[in-house]
Amino acid sequence: MPKRRMHFITLMCAGPTNHHNGGWRHPDSDGDRVLDAGRYEEIARISEQGLFDGVFLVDYHFQQGLEEHSPSLVVKHGGQMAMLDPMQLLASMARVTRHVGLTATVSTTFYDAYHIARTFATLDHLSGGRAGWNIVTTGNQAEAKNHGMDGLKERGSRYDYADEVIEACLALWNTWEPDALKFDKANGIFADPDKMHYVSYEGSMVRTHGGLTTPRAPQGRPVLMQAGSSPRGREFAARWAEVVFTVQQEKSLMQDFYADMKRRAQSQGRNPEECAILPAIDVIVAETEAQAQAEADYVDGFASVALGLQTLTGLTGVDLSTYPLDTPLAEIPVEAERTVSIGLYQNVLKIRKNGRGLTLRQAALLYATTWMAPRLVGTPVSVVDQMQDVFETAACDGFVIGTSTSPMGLRNFVQHVVPELQRRGLYRTEYTGRTFRENLRS
Amino acid sequence: MPKRRMHFITLMCAGPTNHHNGGWRHPDSDGDRVLDAGRYEEIARISEQGLFDGVFLVDYHFQQGLEEHSPSLVVKHGGQMAMLDPMQLLASMARVTRHVGLTATVSTTFYDAYHIARTFATLDHLSGGRAGWNIVTTGNQAEAKNHGMDGLKERGSRYDYADEVIEACLALWNTWEPDALKFDKANGIFADPDKMHYVSYEGSMVRTHGGLTTPRAPQGRPVLMQAGSSPRGREFAARWAEVVFTVQQEKSLMQDFYADMKRRAQSQGRNPEECAILPAIDVIVAETEAQAQAEADYVDGFASVALGLQTLTGLTGVDLSTYPLDTPLAEIPVEAERTVSIGLYQNVLKIRKNGRGLTLRQAALLYATTWMAPRLVGTPVSVVDQMQDVFETAACDGFVIGTSTSPMGLRNFVQHVVPELQRRGLYRTEYTGRTFRENLRS
Repeated sequence: MPKRRMHFITLMCAGPTNHHNGGWRHPDSDGDRVLDAGRYEEIARISEQGLFDGVFLVDYHFQQGLEEHSPSLVVKHGGQMAMLDPMQLLASMARVTRHVGLTATVSTTFYDAYHIARTFATLDHLSGGRAGWNIVTTGNQAEAKNHGMDGLKERGSRYDYADEVIEACLALWNTWEPDALKFDKANGIFADPDKMHYVSYEGSMVRTHGGLTTPRAPQGRPVLMQAGSSPRGREFAARWAEVVFTVQQEKSLMQDFYADMKRRAQSQGRNPEECAILPAIDVIVAETEAQAQAEADYVDGFASVALGLQTLTGLTGVDLSTYPLDTPLAEIPVEAERTVSIGLYQNVLKIRKNGRGLTLRQAALLYATTWMAPRLVGTPVSVVDQMQDVFETAACDGFVIGTSTSPMGLRNFVQHVVPELQRRGLYRTEYTGRTFRENLRS
Repeated sequence: MPKRRMHFITLMCAGPTNHHNGGWRHPDSDGDRVLDAGRYEEIARISEQGLFDGVFLVDYHFQQGLEEHSPSLVVKHGGQMAMLDPMQLLASMARVTRHVGLTATVSTTFYDAYHIARTFATLDHLSGGRAGWNIVTTGNQAEAKNHGMDGLKERGSRYDYADEVIEACLALWNTWEPDALKFDKANGIFADPDKMHYVSYEGSMVRTHGGLTTPRAPQGRPVLMQAGSSPRGREFAARWAEVVFTVQQEKSLMQDFYADMKRRAQSQGRNPEECAILPAIDVIVAETEAQAQAEADYVDGFASVALGLQTLTGLTGVDLSTYPLDTPLAEIPVEAERTVSIGLYQNVLKIRKNGRGLTLRQAALLYATTWMAPRLVGTPVSVVDQMQDVFETAACDGFVIGTSTSPMGLRNFVQHVVPELQRRGLYRTEYTGRTFRENLRS
């Protein structure tokens, strides 16, 4: 039996920062190249040099902090934003890479099945079988207002709706059989109509009748990725996701999540190995522990605590600006279900309970710099020790790598961490699959 | 006063052919590279070598001929199709060109203002100010069924709706002032929140509240292109369009259309010069008249008359397969308003009336090879003579160039026709604008 290998996906935003709100201020950061396709191409190239399975573009359809009569610290200080349409960036990244998977976040609330099916089939063709779809149902009222909606359906029915969107997409992706296209110039046969199928999908909310204009994509359908945390979200991920992205603060929480997701995937009749669980980590690596810590301290010096506090306010639904900054987090009442993300909200509850007496200021800094994902700071050996420990104790199948600084954090990871992983036999030494899916399963 | 210069936009489909249904069968045609981004990049490069204002991707959200229980000649013989998402192709084309405008067809019926505003602002950034939007309202029930709709609104209210979509987009494109982004790493100022504006657009059907994530695009808004033919469609184009694409069979019809559109633009309070009227032409050029005619005959030998007949059936709403092929077109009753396109339908009526006794077979071949746009066949001198005559008699401001064969037809045009136009001072000798819009107005 071949040795289990880790899988990596790069997390990236089409904005100044991935998660560290001051990372873009680093002198070598590319945060001032947010509107340049070359920035994203470079990240894709580095990821491919590191033999990553894929890259993944986070997306938001609202400008955080741009509320009526509200000061915008996110805009001012450069927090998490998604400024560009991810599909165009991925099309551009596809042209300069040959192996790395290309994943975009697209909402089943704002896009219909026909658009989704067509745009991912297009990306799969243009990339030669490397498209991935990070499925979100959208829990953010501000996004709904941008899109002209009165409001969102409640969480459960958003997932019911998303189930039907995916079913409709699957039907559309089967419009053309793999060998329908003939390109027979001599006989004037462009394609074989007998190998095309009229699509008739009629769900209780979603339907599509006709068929996709895009011929069968190399992968048939894109790799499906998801990040559900609520019980309904996890059920959804267990049914569909080939990659599950999660943010868990520590190993024991990763293990709980891992066991739960694998169990759920199995109970859906799936092979749990075909559902890769990838928690987010940040890595700051250097030749010595002291150098790595100095780099972490240096970049943290750029962080905006005020913006971290605003982020925490957004996640909890409690106006934290009314509390002194040295208030212990545990003393602040947190309302349930006022949040857009169950997963991130639960992380706040956990750190509130187990947070070793964090003050509001400390919690805000933690959010400003890590978004509550674990940060591994150290030498290649000590970082890989930690990764290996988590990987070999049923806590993950690899990681989503989001770095405090871009692209240096990623470049350092590829240069220093990847060789150490390879030395230990924990990671591939070349791409063996032809597609994103094949690499994920190898 | 500077001499008036012609403007050109390349017409292209993400499918086997532009309009000539057998063009893809030519041995040198790229019709077998439909799924390869390199094909589209090459067309963009050739267009830029020819100093064209732009390229324009036609789009369809349905697979013609893929009806239930219906044989599909379009699929079999390779007719007009649009197989790929145009925005990804344009993003890819943007990376290999620096001047040529990049225009996609996007429907106001299937996409909301937020998506449209974001995707075109993204393209404008990635291309450095070269995005164009060909606005369609979608008159095709098959497209609506693919998108899960019961049906389409009637033509007039589709345009009323599109008016509001554009107004909403304009509001969104003004979310960020041009100098809002600061990228000030030293002081931690990413952008100036005072230069961002909350958007609140409330039309009678369309609304958006919030603001665009995408910073102000180089052009502010994309170049707006439109192809309305009905009176309501022309009013719409007169209000918004900076480029009007039209299919007119001959000079007198071009002149009527040109005068009408310029009058309408003026009555909207616009400068008619900022509304360029570009009728479609196909050009087959060679060193001698005989060679050019031989090339035309050669490519026409690949055409499918049966598919031309099916196309004509689709346009007229009359099942022409029940008539003998030698029936004079004038004897076939044509029903009104059963068609998806008023413009193309009127062309059928005109050729039925003035068609010099065309039989059904001849009409079908005409559709199979030209889609009723004028085809200029000849030497550089004779082709430019015809273009100049039309251009100088108030019939157009330039042309949309769709060639029977791709990319050779376009390459021949650039190599042979452009120099002759330049020699006569009818065409630019270099790009002078920085953006698509600036080139259109120069």
